[in-house]
Amino acid sequence: MADEFDIIHRYFAPLTRGDTAAFGLTDDAAAIPTRTGYEHVVTTDAIVQGVHFLENETPENIAHRLCGSNLSDLAAMGAKPIGFTLAAAWQKGIGQGFIEAFATGLGEWVDGFSFPLLGGDTVTTPGPMMFSLTAIGEVEAGMALKRGGAKPGDTVYVSGTIGDGALGLLAAQGKLDDLPDTDSEFLKRRFRRPSPRVSTGRSLVGLASACIDISDGLIQDLGHIAAASGVSVRITADRIPLSRAARAALDIDPSSIETILTGGDDYELAFTSSEEPDVGDAPLTAIGEVTDGADVRVTGSDGKVMQLRSGGFNHFAGT
Amino acid sequence: MADEFDIIHRYFAPLTRGDTAAFGLTDDAAAIPTRTGYEHVVTTDAIVQGVHFLENETPENIAHRLCGSNLSDLAAMGAKPIGFTLAAAWQKGIGQGFIEAFATGLGEWVDGFSFPLLGGDTVTTPGPMMFSLTAIGEVEAGMALKRGGAKPGDTVYVSGTIGDGALGLLAAQGKLDDLPDTDSEFLKRRFRRPSPRVSTGRSLVGLASACIDISDGLIQDLGHIAAASGVSVRITADRIPLSRAARAALDIDPSSIETILTGGDDYELAFTSSEEPDVGDAPLTAIGEVTDGADVRVTGSDGKVMQLRSGGFNHFAGT
Repeated sequence: MADEFDIIHRYFAPLTRGDTAAFGLTDDAAAIPTRTGYEHVVTTDAIVQGVHFLENETPENIAHRLCGSNLSDLAAMGAKPIGFTLAAAWQKGIGQGFIEAFATGLGEWVDGFSFPLLGGDTVTTPGPMMFSLTAIGEVEAGMALKRGGAKPGDTVYVSGTIGDGALGLLAAQGKLDDLPDTDSEFLKRRFRRPSPRVSTGRSLVGLASACIDISDGLIQDLGHIAAASGVSVRITADRIPLSRAARAALDIDPSSIETILTGGDDYELAFTSSEEPDVGDAPLTAIGEVTDGADVRVTGSDGKVMQLRSGGFNHFAGT
Repeated sequence: MADEFDIIHRYFAPLTRGDTAAFGLTDDAAAIPTRTGYEHVVTTDAIVQGVHFLENETPENIAHRLCGSNLSDLAAMGAKPIGFTLAAAWQKGIGQGFIEAFATGLGEWVDGFSFPLLGGDTVTTPGPMMFSLTAIGEVEAGMALKRGGAKPGDTVYVSGTIGDGALGLLAAQGKLDDLPDTDSEFLKRRFRRPSPRVSTGRSLVGLASACIDISDGLIQDLGHIAAASGVSVRITADRIPLSRAARAALDIDPSSIETILTGGDDYELAFTSSEEPDVGDAPLTAIGEVTDGADVRVTGSDGKVMQLRSGGFNHFAGT
């Protein structure tokens, strides 16, 4: 592996896209101007080889997962991306081709979301590779979307379709072999290349009473809203929007509803609002209501509350 | 190991010290107010077990190195610390006692520098532990100290004493056994528990023409100033301030001057200025001058330019 300074100069400095805050990655830190009336939103997510991404995942897909999960956190706060810092721990002896491909993957996000690299650290590790990204965004002061704030009477919405991420992981692991190839490929792509709802999040500022991105799984993440807001969230399974591919998987194996409801990695938004949202830039679906209480309940097709193996019916009292 | 949410609730949420920007670590991101007239300074440094800290290092000392190196980067920019995010990758099966002690170590910095935890991520790894910290500070808009800006005629200064960090690592590795115990202990403590010059950095805003923290080694870091500023830095070995312990090590082995000049981990500041600095909160020593050119030269006791094995005489043309 080439020298650290050479790697930074060759592959990472171009990812600043000339943003003056980054000082060309040649200084000790970035200096990010602050806009009057705005505040900075900061989030950090880390991924480890063999834990958060497959052992033999491609460098481009690693970059996609890393950027996707962090931008999804900014989206959940209603923040506009400003840029990011990156700590990369490369396996000793890794080829420059790998690093270059990783940087190419990052570049797609840099350009797609006006999300320049502003600083970071490059180290080597004798163990699995690990990447930690800190995403910085801005939002109107005091207006960041939060998990607390849902009120009885609010409607519960989700963006896009639910379950594709978790089903995509199963497909990538060869566990959905009965599925037609086109559906399988669609789900794998949804898992590997998440599409965080940044512009939707921006549109929800001042409109959503609570918001979260679906990374742990729909039920668990709605549980976070319920717990932070001190309410009950009641949703109806039949109203949850599914992709054609997810519906095909569900037709083959009806127990996939568990994966759809509790698997993670959707990177869609779940939010509550007392107003009908009309944000125009993503499909939004009402899936339930906020009531008094302290739990998440899913009503199945039979009209009964579903008993899920995990994350389906939690009480938060005392936690 | 306990569940991630339990670890965060028990050991890390208290480190927010109630800072409202952190939302108690229960939301997707932190929201950091911006002060009119200031900008945010952001830096990320990562450390890997067995690479940046010893395999069997104590959790408190790991926290000290992590906070020390990042706060030193803020100091080098002249920034006041605001807070930090942390990505921690724990070895599978690590005891809660280790995590608690690590959090205790962090707590010393949280309180010592008004540097609350604002967010982050906790994961497990099958490999060596790794920690990545993103430090956020603020500085008067447009006034961040940078590496470029040194001008011929400026004087070169350093804070504190130089070489203790690298000698301390040798002492910790049992390689300085001829040194009296008190000196050895002093050096080891300087290595394990760096004292970043945050208040000195703040005082240098508007005074220093260029500034860097000494982490890679005095000569290499002065080289960064020389390269970024397009100048030559000329220093005199005899003027470099040494601790009593470093002087004792040098008396035993005169070749230690190489370690002192090129070893890293001092976390002092090196800066250039056309004015006599009188900042009052750290010993400052003039060690040389800025001239036209593109290199770093060290004049030895014999009046000749020293030839160092590494990092002693670099030309930057073409890099």
